[in-house]
Amino acid sequence: MTPTHFTPVPLDKSYRLMNHGPTVLVSAQHGGGINVMAAAWACVLDYGQAPKVTVVLDKATFTRELVEASGWFALQLPTRAMATITVGVGTDSARDLPDKLAKHGVKTFAAPDVDLPLVEGCVGWLACRLVPEPHNQQAYDLFIGEVVGAWADARVFHDGRWHFEDAPDELRTIHHVAGGQFFVTGASVQG
Amino acid sequence: MTPTHFTPVPLDKSYRLMNHGPTVLVSAQHGGGINVMAAAWACVLDYGQAPKVTVVLDKATFTRELVEASGWFALQLPTRAMATITVGVGTDSARDLPDKLAKHGVKTFAAPDVDLPLVEGCVGWLACRLVPEPHNQQAYDLFIGEVVGAWADARVFHDGRWHFEDAPDELRTIHHVAGGQFFVTGASVQG
Repeated sequence: MTPTHFTPVPLDKSYRLMNHGPTVLVSAQHGGGINVMAAAWACVLDYGQAPKVTVVLDKATFTRELVEASGWFALQLPTRAMATITVGVGTDSARDLPDKLAKHGVKTFAAPDVDLPLVEGCVGWLACRLVPEPHNQQAYDLFIGEVVGAWADARVFHDGRWHFEDAPDELRTIHHVAGGQFFVTGASVQG
Repeated sequence: MTPTHFTPVPLDKSYRLMNHGPTVLVSAQHGGGINVMAAAWACVLDYGQAPKVTVVLDKATFTRELVEASGWFALQLPTRAMATITVGVGTDSARDLPDKLAKHGVKTFAAPDVDLPLVEGCVGWLACRLVPEPHNQQAYDLFIGEVVGAWADARVFHDGRWHFEDAPDELRTIHHVAGGQFFVTGASVQG
């Protein structure tokens, strides 16, 4: 079900959802199959009216197969409350465990306008069209996406920027280090 | 001058310096010229014994010219105490302001074994050999580096991981959002 606070973000502000380097969940679907995996190696590549992102997708992952088959993927930002889910979908593979999403309590809803599953409970979502770069994908597992739609949970992102200070800490984004350890996005400072 | 707490990090643990997605300073030198710029769009690309990183370097930057001429760059992690310096070197260009580093009080020291300037006051440093990918560089401003040396400030990174909780908050890493606003790397949680 589409989350209550799910709100469009203008494309030219969508880079701000990921500019601070949080860990993402990657979702994709093809031919009736849906999957979600975790990725710490995701980054903004460009902003403006044709924003782009990069994400590293290992050859072993089922999600990568869905991305390559469909030409689409979504990146979304899990919260502190979702740290355990994030480790779960980042550890188990749908190849070995077909009911991986159900096991970890991951629920998806349909993105507006594009055929992409988005993950409930996240606080930012980016719908991306794969920009095919076969050499990058083969040599580096590096995928480029053009962002065609962006949304955020209005409790923590509004007026073009994050406002974590106005909401429960459980809604803050997270940054994976290693072995299931994360840093929560912390205090705001002006440089 | 090499910082007091400057300590080698094993290559296979070096990805952990950047896995949580902090903003970096990019430094390079060539033919007597040295420069430092800020980049929020930097990411781990691979780990293991030949770790790699990506970083986006705009065509307008002088640092990019030094990277392309020398084939080397360093990424390093500025701290909360360096937020203003990070904005300064990310805003001013050495093309217009040749004494940019002096203006912002940026001091560099020589990396061990490789001809790279490293920035004093940072808490992690990665010396990278450019992996030439002309199409990525031209089309996306995307540069790939293989990490050949890594070091950290032992007060906040030791035994292969960050220990921000044991040190002053001023030594925490920072994550740029937009317009000089950063989030400080926050609390540690286990997923």
